[in-house]
Amino acid sequence: MVHIEDKEFIRGKVPMTKQEVRCISIAKLDLKEDSVLIDVGAGSGSVGIEAANFMPKGKVFGIEVNPDGIEVIRQNLEKFNTANYELVEGLAPVDIPDICVDRMFIGGSKGNLETILEWFLCHSGDNAKVVINTITLESLSDAVKGLEKLKFCEIEVININIARNKKIGRYNMMMGENPIYIISAKRSK
Amino acid sequence: MVHIEDKEFIRGKVPMTKQEVRCISIAKLDLKEDSVLIDVGAGSGSVGIEAANFMPKGKVFGIEVNPDGIEVIRQNLEKFNTANYELVEGLAPVDIPDICVDRMFIGGSKGNLETILEWFLCHSGDNAKVVINTITLESLSDAVKGLEKLKFCEIEVININIARNKKIGRYNMMMGENPIYIISAKRSK
Amino acid sequence: MVHIEDKEFIRGKVPMTKQEVRCISIAKLDLKEDSVLIDVGAGSGSVGIEAANFMPKGKVFGIEVNPDGIEVIRQNLEKFNTANYELVEGLAPVDIPDICVDRMFIGGSKGNLETILEWFLCHSGDNAKVVINTITLESLSDAVKGLEKLKFCEIEVININIARNKKIGRYNMMMGENPIYIISAKRSK
Amino acid sequence: MVHIEDKEFIRGKVPMTKQEVRCISIAKLDLKEDSVLIDVGAGSGSVGIEAANFMPKGKVFGIEVNPDGIEVIRQNLEKFNTANYELVEGLAPVDIPDICVDRMFIGGSKGNLETILEWFLCHSGDNAKVVINTITLESLSDAVKGLEKLKFCEIEVININIARNKKIGRYNMMMGENPIYIISAKRSK
Repeated sequence: MVHIEDKEFIRGKVPMTKQEVRCISIAKLDLKEDSVLIDVGAGSGSVGIEAANFMPKGKVFGIEVNPDGIEVIRQNLEKFNTANYELVEGLAPVDIPDICVDRMFIGGSKGNLETILEWFLCHSGDNAKVVINTITLESLSDAVKGLEKLKFCEIEVININIARNKKIGRYNMMMGENPIYIISAKRSK
Repeated sequence: MVHIEDKEFIRGKVPMTKQEVRCISIAKLDLKEDSVLIDVGAGSGSVGIEAANFMPKGKVFGIEVNPDGIEVIRQNLEKFNTANYELVEGLAPVDIPDICVDRMFIGGSKGNLETILEWFLCHSGDNAKVVINTITLESLSDAVKGLEKLKFCEIEVININIARNKKIGRYNMMMGENPIYIISAKRSK
Repeated sequence: MVHIEDKEFIRGKVPMTKQEVRCISIAKLDLKEDSVLIDVGAGSGSVGIEAANFMPKGKVFGIEVNPDGIEVIRQNLEKFNTANYELVEGLAPVDIPDICVDRMFIGGSKGNLETILEWFLCHSGDNAKVVINTITLESLSDAVKGLEKLKFCEIEVININIARNKKIGRYNMMMGENPIYIISAKRSK
Repeated sequence: MVHIEDKEFIRGKVPMTKQEVRCISIAKLDLKEDSVLIDVGAGSGSVGIEAANFMPKGKVFGIEVNPDGIEVIRQNLEKFNTANYELVEGLAPVDIPDICVDRMFIGGSKGNLETILEWFLCHSGDNAKVVINTITLESLSDAVKGLEKLKFCEIEVININIARNKKIGRYNMMMGENPIYIISAKRSK
């Protein structure tokens, strides 16, 4: 099992990236089997833990500052038996250990997006890739401006709107979900 | 004031068509100042009451079976002082009085969509127009099939997805709403 | 006839706001019968010309700099016999005559959004309303920041995604259209 | 490399499922490493070929009747060196060889959706899963009704609307794409 269904994850009170957005984000990361991924604002751990399945010779670093999140990530790591994942408690970029990565996922930046992107530039090599998820207009704007300022290339922004059926009697009502912006880019050489 | 803001309407516990969907639906009805409109499943009355503003020499018949809805419609008619609106308590098409109309809006059909469309064919003339709102796949399918079977023409289906900002601190989060299908058509001569 | 169908408008090579977005934008403007509206970047004139129908005792000023647009607006004004509309050739805000308005619609700002909003503050009174349409992330960000900086209130952002049927044989294919951001706000007292 | 970017695929004149929809569809298939998947209406082969990467001990059967599609699939199989994929030329279900499968993806059914679903019931076991993509209202309705009639369970319908940036000068315009319905279900025991 490489893909994981939403209902498999332990959530607690922590918001979780839904399967559709998770699998698009992971596809955009274009992981290699030996990639090193940092998952910033790991939340419930779902993106990093599913990503870990696609990089059996690689490693995921998940960084999260919220105690509820940290607890849920621990539980999910145990449940899914994810060996190639290291949980870092703290805030990005200050608390990230001195590692080299080739992939970064940002699910939450606590207002530090630009310094996180700068950290990435200093700790990655050619063709390194970053994927950012956000639901706010301000973070969207910060992400696009930050990536352009720091000379990232192939900047793609998609906005994904999903409606899902809910069966009421014999009827399938389509229920809207919050649209997500998925921003992806590659660092220039 | 011809357009009415959502917050102006009294709602009670009755679901209300939101402004964006309401104004598109009314635009699709292509009302004339002397149109006669029947609003089937009038709900809170919002579509018919706003439509009444665009047809000062015309008349709206609103039909609703739900007691909560009937009460809210009465309150809104009083609040907006809508003179050219007649409220019919009951179920369409059986309880509709013997009237001739040139416009029909269907916000809810209680499973009687085809007989409601047949009623319309018998009680309207050339170029009469119908607009249907639904959020379920089954009603969407019934509407398109019913309109095709009864030889309506210029059948248009739009699916409208709206996300709206919600301010949280300095951030504008975009919150998704349920997508609505708006189906419109003209009766053949 | 107060609402106008898309196919009624002369377009030439000028992009035109589609009916759904036009009628939502006009509804958000909350026009009074004696409003004075300035339509900035009038394009084909469609928003201002339809709006003029809702304000029989008011007036629309349409400002447009593109010669193709100016020609198309002239043709549409003649076609729809719109008496309460004055076409201004030039660029906003520098070429706007010295008028007082209570409503502003911005369909295009040529990069001058903030000075256009400042003009509006100087030429309108309490409760004046502005509605902005855009399809770019940069103008969206500029609009929200500009409105916040200039202390506008009740800032609403909606993103509207529409899919429309296209009949191919017996099938209705749903074709996506470009999402539009509709930003509306009220000036503070 | 398990995920494949759109630009990697050879397309010819054949429509191709885009990455976002492809990766959601594959995630919904919930592939196991030894799954046997039939890809009905394989098109350019993109879904089946990417899926093959996730099931190294399994096998994909792709069935396609269109000669252009068949040629493009052959080219993609060669390009990606996909060993565990067998191309079947013909129409489903009549031309499918006598195989047992546990997963089915339907990208196109040529009007035979119900018989294809019946074939699946006869050639799969407990917990077998099917995922269907469509952009038409009629196929959506046929899919939901067919799955309900044949007692499939956990029927999920999502409608996915994607807008993607296009850089024009300093602006990112958001361009809408056609919404896709992704229907997934599990066969009952």
